[in-house]
Formats: sequence, structure tokens, C-alpha cells
Amino acid sequence: MNVFNSIIQELIKFRNDRDWAQFHNPKDLALAINVEAGELLELFLWKSPDEANKEKVKEELADILAFCFLLADKYQFDIKQIVLDKIKQNAEKYPVDKAKGTAKKYNEL
Amino acid sequence: MNVFNSIIQELIKFRNDRDWAQFHNPKDLALAINVEAGELLELFLWKSPDEANKEKVKEELADILAFCFLLADKYQFDIKQIVLDKIKQNAEKYPVDKAKGTAKKYNEL
Amino acid sequence: MNVFNSIIQELIKFRNDRDWAQFHNPKDLALAINVEAGELLELFLWKSPDEANKEKVKEELADILAFCFLLADKYQFDIKQIVLDKIKQNAEKYPVDKAKGTAKKYNEL
Amino acid sequence: MNVFNSIIQELIKFRNDRDWAQFHNPKDLALAINVEAGELLELFLWKSPDEANKEKVKEELADILAFCFLLADKYQFDIKQIVLDKIKQNAEKYPVDKAKGTAKKYNEL
Repeated sequence: MNVFNSIIQELIKFRNDRDWAQFHNPKDLALAINVEAGELLELFLWKSPDEANKEKVKEELADILAFCFLLADKYQFDIKQIVLDKIKQNAEKYPVDKAKGTAKKYNEL
Repeated sequence: MNVFNSIIQELIKFRNDRDWAQFHNPKDLALAINVEAGELLELFLWKSPDEANKEKVKEELADILAFCFLLADKYQFDIKQIVLDKIKQNAEKYPVDKAKGTAKKYNEL
Repeated sequence: MNVFNSIIQELIKFRNDRDWAQFHNPKDLALAINVEAGELLELFLWKSPDEANKEKVKEELADILAFCFLLADKYQFDIKQIVLDKIKQNAEKYPVDKAKGTAKKYNEL
Repeated sequence: MNVFNSIIQELIKFRNDRDWAQFHNPKDLALAINVEAGELLELFLWKSPDEANKEKVKEELADILAFCFLLADKYQFDIKQIVLDKIKQNAEKYPVDKAKGTAKKYNEL
């Protein structure tokens, strides 16, 4: 069993112990990711880029990841595979010779 | 090397090939997570909970995960550890006997 | 008729012409606000605070406001009133003598 | 003076009393809008579309509007004008004959 599966197993045990599967449809999981992402963002609000509280960043990031893993499980995505696939796809959208050193979006390159 | 490190290594190679480390401060990575979370959310907008396009969910989820992994790397967090720690913390906020079968927030239990 | 009502009337005419009232429940309007907020945020991603494209900020901000106004209409909120009420409420959470010159959250003051 | 200007004047008075103009650059205002939008979204999480607490929706919506108005002020946008302009623009992206009764995005019509 790989590391993702072992984490997801823990998440699902936590959920099932509380009988929460009934709430975890894909749409609400996407909502939850956004809610947690907003809480992460708040830690940086009105601050310079490195001033956030590291301990709280850790907690909010863990919440986002937990809901991402549960959503991946819903669709039976292989987490490693989908990230590697996306890197490949982005490599085509952002070829090195055009994208190097610029933060422009691919449709503005 | 565990699976997270191998994915993060790929993400960093992609980034360094494009000389993008200069843009990847923690605050902008948190912004990026929110931007991608919004794109995931859009796939469910005006739709019933299971109607999103699975292929697009895969791509947006991969984008969120990629920026989460890069932010974790910034702070040198161990991804497995922070998620497992958060599960433990949430288990205290949501004790089974109080939280079972209800979607209420911990401060309303 | 005040200015909010005249804008909301235009928004509702636009919506009814397209038979979209069926999609505009409060939850999806809240989703739409988040999706548009994410698009606004993207304009600032990887950039210094004043570098966003003004014309695009105008468009994304208008989208957020449009969905906010439609959500306010759903609940029959008086927009001016709810904002003024919130200012009063925030004045208590952030008393001038404690909050002056600091970006701390009220529970950290 | 129109209603927007009178609200914005109150918001700016509240801000200046606390010496917070220093924090209110456009990028952080866009962050704030996202943070508040996430808090609005949380009220609908795991719930059916009409189950959110109305009083809390009122407060979170007011927060979003407040930061939207402050951002509009930053760029000296006329709020009524930018929303009406966007309605016109959307009317072209979503012609009635194609968009009627469907929630599809304009690029899928």
C-alpha cells in the first residue's frame, strides 16, 4: 500500500467513525477545499509574503490536503499519477523557451 | 525517497527549468491554491453534486495539489505527518459521541 | 427606487430573459461569488500589489458584485443597511485604541 | 452624493480611524474578498441549498461587499456603471437564444 492510500484510509476511518460519508459528495468536498483554502489565505492577509504563522499554515494546509485526498478517493484518482500528468500537460502549455523567467499566463506568452 | 518527495522533485524541476522560484513565495503559493480551488469549484457551479466533468476535476485537483506540495516544501513540512497530526487534532474537536451523524461545526456541537 | 434596486432589477431581467432563476439558489450563488473572487485573485497572482490589469479587475469585481446583489435580493437584504450594520459591529470588535495601526485579528488584539 | 459614495465614505472613515490604509493595497483587498467569500461559503457547507443561517449570511455578505467597495474606491470605479457594463458584456457572451434554460458556460454553448 502506498503512502496516499494509507493516509486516505485514516481519513476514511475518521469519517466513518462519525458517519459523515453522507455529507461528502463531490460538490461539498470542492466547497470544503475552498473554505479551507480561504482559511489558509487569511494567514497571509495584510502581511508580507513570509510573515504567516508557520504552525497555523501547517494546520490549514493539512485541512486542504485532507479534503483533496477525499475528493481524489471519490473519483478513484491515483494522486501521484494525476499530478505527474498535470506537470506534463503544463510543460506543453508553458514551453521553457517562452515561459522562462516570466509569470505570464500561457495564453499571454 | 518517499512518493511525496519524488513528486515534489518533479514539481521543482519543472519550476527551476522555467526560473519561477522567484515568484513562489508562501503568500503567492497560498493565492495560487485559492485560484485553483476556485477553478475546481466552478466545475460544480449550478450543478447537482455529481455532475461535474471528471476529466476536468482531475486537472484542477492536480493543480491544487501541486501548489500545496510546493507550499509544504517551502516550509519543509512532512505531508504525511501534517495530515495525520490534523486528523488527531480533529478527533479531539469532533469526539465521536457528539459529532456522529451531524454536520455541525465543532463550536456548535 | 434606490440605485441598488435599479441595478438588481437589471440583473433579474438579464436572468429571467435566460430562464436562469432555476439555478440561482443561495448555495450556488455563494459558490459563484467564490468562483468570481478566485478569478479576481488570479489577476494579482505572482505580482506586486498594484500590478493587476485594471480593466480586468473592473470586470471581475463587477461579476462578484452582481452575484452579491443577487444573493442579497434572495434574502431581501437592504444592501446599504447590512454594510452599515457590519461597520458598527466591526467597530466593537476593533476598538480604535486597540486596533489602531495593527493588522491583527480581533481575537489577537 | 449617491448611496455608494455614502457607504464608501463610512468605510473609509472606519479605516482611517484605525490607520489601516497602509494595509489596503489592491492585492490584499482582493485577498480579503476571497477570505470573506470563503467564510460565506462555509455557511452552506454540507447543507442543502437553503439551509444556511440567514443572520450569518447577512454578516459575511456585508464583509464581502465592504471590501469590494473599498477595492472599487481604490481604482475609482463607478460601481453602478461597472455592473451595468458587465451585464451588457455578458448579454453578448450569453445570447438569449443560445443560453436560455441552460447553465452551460459561454464557451460551451
